Amino acid sequence: MSIYNVILVAVDLSSEAHQLADKARELAAANNATLHLVHVIEPLSFAYGGDVPMDLSSIQDQLNEHAHNKLEHFSQQLQHPVTGQHVVSGHTETEIHRLADNLKADLIIVGSHGRHGLALLLGSTANGILHGAHCDVLAVRVYDTDENKDDA
Amino acid sequence: MSIYNVILVAVDLSSEAHQLADKARELAAANNATLHLVHVIEPLSFAYGGDVPMDLSSIQDQLNEHAHNKLEHFSQQLQHPVTGQHVVSGHTETEIHRLADNLKADLIIVGSHGRHGLALLLGSTANGILHGAHCDVLAVRVYDTDENKDDA
Repeated sequence: MSIYNVILVAVDLSSEAHQLADKARELAAANNATLHLVHVIEPLSFAYGGDVPMDLSSIQDQLNEHAHNKLEHFSQQLQHPVTGQHVVSGHTETEIHRLADNLKADLIIVGSHGRHGLALLLGSTANGILHGAHCDVLAVRVYDTDENKDDA
Repeated sequence: MSIYNVILVAVDLSSEAHQLADKARELAAANNATLHLVHVIEPLSFAYGGDVPMDLSSIQDQLNEHAHNKLEHFSQQLQHPVTGQHVVSGHTETEIHRLADNLKADLIIVGSHGRHGLALLLGSTANGILHGAHCDVLAVRVYDTDENKDDA
């Protein structure tokens, strides 16, 4: 089949990323689709209200390098040609939507921990990506390493 | 491919349902998957706080019949064998999760209007289904009939 031509995988670099990689590989292969990976680094200043009385640029550089390494590792796990590895800085949902538009992606794949209740209040990337996306969004249910799949 | 074996499509009976039907057909065919449809009717008493000083049962019966007819129409649009058409009454997210578990569905497909901002406060079924689902959820971006796809 070729339902989707350009797939963008939002990678959050958690230990569950390999579950996402497995599904992304299967879908990309089945659709013979171009595959792009993205990881968004939210600037540290976002977390502290934008007014931080110290220079965070060296920490930001380290985060950037860490993200590039992790994305490269994810790319190797995929065992499928990756057309683009994108590490971008900014607001997660905004940057993923922007990149998806630029790449003319017709599917965004994101991991979902299936959290609800209190944990949901802490925010969900899958939920944020869903809203405002101009294309289909597949939330792949991933399980925490210490989570019992049957009880999840 | 056969990434998904049992697909449950949450049908909201809006005029955009045919866009969802197109995608569901392609995915079911590509995966050679068993296809189930569900429409949830939220009891009228839910909307009025559970204490309604009149008998709503005849209206509820009409809603039920309307839902069955619409689901049958959707089923015909699909042009793909449908194993089960489920009209259930209750809380939308809860009933869809329960049915998905019972059917051992590995994918739930739901339409998403991609609303954000104020419209999001009014609630989103796609978002509700995403949280608490034990399987993957594909939000298919559907466009309102009067919505310009390029501007959406």
